[in-house]
Amino acid sequence: MTVSWLDLPADTLFGLHNLPYGVFTTAVEGDRRRIGVAVGDQVLDAAAAARATGLDARLADLLAGPSLNPLLAAGRADWTLVRAALTDWLTDPGHRAAVEPCLLPRAEAVLHLPFEVADYVDFYASEHHATNLGRLFRPGTEPLTPNWKHLPIGYHGRSGSVVVSGTPVVRPNGQRKAPADAAPSIGPSRRLDIEAEVGFVVGVPSALGTPVPLADFAEHVFGVCLVNDWSARDIQAWEYVPLGPFLGKSFATSVSPWVVPLDALAHARTTPPARDVEPLPYLDDRDGADPWALDLSLEVRLNGTPVSRPPFAGMYWTAAQQLAHLTVNGAGLRTGDLFASGTVSGPDRGTEGALIELTWNGERPVELADGSVRSFLEDGDEVVITATAPGPDGSRVGFGEVTGRVLPARDPASR
Amino acid sequence: MTVSWLDLPADTLFGLHNLPYGVFTTAVEGDRRRIGVAVGDQVLDAAAAARATGLDARLADLLAGPSLNPLLAAGRADWTLVRAALTDWLTDPGHRAAVEPCLLPRAEAVLHLPFEVADYVDFYASEHHATNLGRLFRPGTEPLTPNWKHLPIGYHGRSGSVVVSGTPVVRPNGQRKAPADAAPSIGPSRRLDIEAEVGFVVGVPSALGTPVPLADFAEHVFGVCLVNDWSARDIQAWEYVPLGPFLGKSFATSVSPWVVPLDALAHARTTPPARDVEPLPYLDDRDGADPWALDLSLEVRLNGTPVSRPPFAGMYWTAAQQLAHLTVNGAGLRTGDLFASGTVSGPDRGTEGALIELTWNGERPVELADGSVRSFLEDGDEVVITATAPGPDGSRVGFGEVTGRVLPARDPASR
Repeated sequence: MTVSWLDLPADTLFGLHNLPYGVFTTAVEGDRRRIGVAVGDQVLDAAAAARATGLDARLADLLAGPSLNPLLAAGRADWTLVRAALTDWLTDPGHRAAVEPCLLPRAEAVLHLPFEVADYVDFYASEHHATNLGRLFRPGTEPLTPNWKHLPIGYHGRSGSVVVSGTPVVRPNGQRKAPADAAPSIGPSRRLDIEAEVGFVVGVPSALGTPVPLADFAEHVFGVCLVNDWSARDIQAWEYVPLGPFLGKSFATSVSPWVVPLDALAHARTTPPARDVEPLPYLDDRDGADPWALDLSLEVRLNGTPVSRPPFAGMYWTAAQQLAHLTVNGAGLRTGDLFASGTVSGPDRGTEGALIELTWNGERPVELADGSVRSFLEDGDEVVITATAPGPDGSRVGFGEVTGRVLPARDPASR
Repeated sequence: MTVSWLDLPADTLFGLHNLPYGVFTTAVEGDRRRIGVAVGDQVLDAAAAARATGLDARLADLLAGPSLNPLLAAGRADWTLVRAALTDWLTDPGHRAAVEPCLLPRAEAVLHLPFEVADYVDFYASEHHATNLGRLFRPGTEPLTPNWKHLPIGYHGRSGSVVVSGTPVVRPNGQRKAPADAAPSIGPSRRLDIEAEVGFVVGVPSALGTPVPLADFAEHVFGVCLVNDWSARDIQAWEYVPLGPFLGKSFATSVSPWVVPLDALAHARTTPPARDVEPLPYLDDRDGADPWALDLSLEVRLNGTPVSRPPFAGMYWTAAQQLAHLTVNGAGLRTGDLFASGTVSGPDRGTEGALIELTWNGERPVELADGSVRSFLEDGDEVVITATAPGPDGSRVGFGEVTGRVLPARDPASR
């Protein structure tokens, strides 16, 4: 096992096996955005370390900031070289004198959106979530639509509304119409919800017209982050037929500030669940091709109380299948494309990734540590989603967290 | 009437009243992208003219290229100043010696995507189109969903698939399942279609959390282009429930290369159709606020045969209402956001903006000049969408064209 000259606790979620990338500023240096790598409870200023160690100029340029996009675009061979350099810096005592001054406490780093989001696509890959939502949104019909097990259903979201963890979420106004209402009204959402998801960050683009097969997943996808796809259920329910979610989702989508490279997830790879329906060839990951199911354990806390522990390993569709589907029609990929798994919900109570499922549309509110109860989010509520995955030698890989606090809606009549 | 020292024909669609902006290169100067302004059958190299006339450096910077984004972001006051400068250059004989060398024949200009597309949203604002599609996609139910007259239905499309007019469109592969099929199959779309639309280009961003009211439309929107939202009806029909269109649309969306500024459309503004349902206040354009219905006349040609003449004036929802709706939940705007009207279909035969309506799902194929007939597009077919609008003194404002030729699908099994 590689050992760092840093005094890392054995149980750190940010050991040498992780090394996720983010973008930070500091109060001292103001708004100069730099690429940081989380290690232990510190952040390594990657460009400063590259200078101090005399890293090859071409690789150093990938770490120059102000976003991860140049690194993302560089491709897997360079991703491997940069990761090897990071490991070398943090393990070779000969680098210590040069590298140690490039570390700062994580608490002093202000974290920013780590990459420029190109297109944002949201999938719907948990059978349990899709079944629950089908029951809640379309009672009296088959909860899963006939296409669900033939293709990973997805839709485009608003990339301009993707914000970094910690950004406050203003309760959206919009049209709401309960079944008993004669007409819709405009006003603050009364059913503000979360969706705990896992996001995949595309590095290497693909040409318009050229599909990305399952086997090429890791050539295009750089890494993984956490996503909270905030959802206004009342706005969504009224608007979404026939063209899908729009304003019920487009007011904010929060992402965690650290992008965990796929290279850190070798021990998290697992077998996807059995599929009931034979997949078409472009989606068939059963024979030989390495499937990309990942054994991530999520946790959702509401005002500090853990309310759910969604398991990612059981998602019906993997990210590789989602990428193959997304591009099968020739849609091109761009550096910074983000696609999310859809709400991660398991089969059991307490594993649902959205309040509407967890509280069954408010019929069984969750109780918080302070004795209060919640069906949906109230103003002032704070949601924190975290996740870990298996690493080498019994270690865990941390994803950090994606957080957000709900602010009151603005007066819809004001300017 | 202002007269140019250029010898412009009286009936030009690109007179001084138009002056649309685009981005071009020339074979001689290679890949240096420059901002051009169409006038008559020529293109004015805007940055060259700014240098030759000694335009204020701040305004000249907006015209420096390589895209329209800096000009878009500058805002209405600067849009007015730049347009005034263009008019001055082309009318004041004192500028002729400096400006004339900056003109080149339009045929020598290679036109590119004029702006960097941020988010792409597609609406569904023609009552006739929505009614037709409801009948075709959901037979036996009310064709208009209950929300349709309460809000402008829209969804996010794939901005990375927006291409400039002239880009070939490869027939997409995807999952198709006819009602009689037991299971879906993968292969080339058999029902490739067009959607003739009008696009609106956002210049000035808005802050996340701050809606854009109807009255601020022209402060944020710079201008108008034509859009062909290519659609694979078989892929779309199988995938779109419950989360909306995805791969049936995301393989290509073509836009015209010229962005006509709102300032050129003062004579095109007209009264929106009567609405059957009282709009909520944020969508109410009836009292005082200038509505943004626009009297554009579109034409669709298929292999040279005019097959449809969709009228834009009768669209139920205006672009200003669409923008107010898009932002009512606090979604922010970015420079380069593109939102399209949805298919422009009128009430009469021969005014439908999509083949699925025009041929009523193939039941009444259109006949082309060469004697052949079409239900949907065949490989090699070329579609050209054009439009004009009323200008001053009986003139017309041209939008140029958005064209595309269908190429055969690639073998879905090949790499």
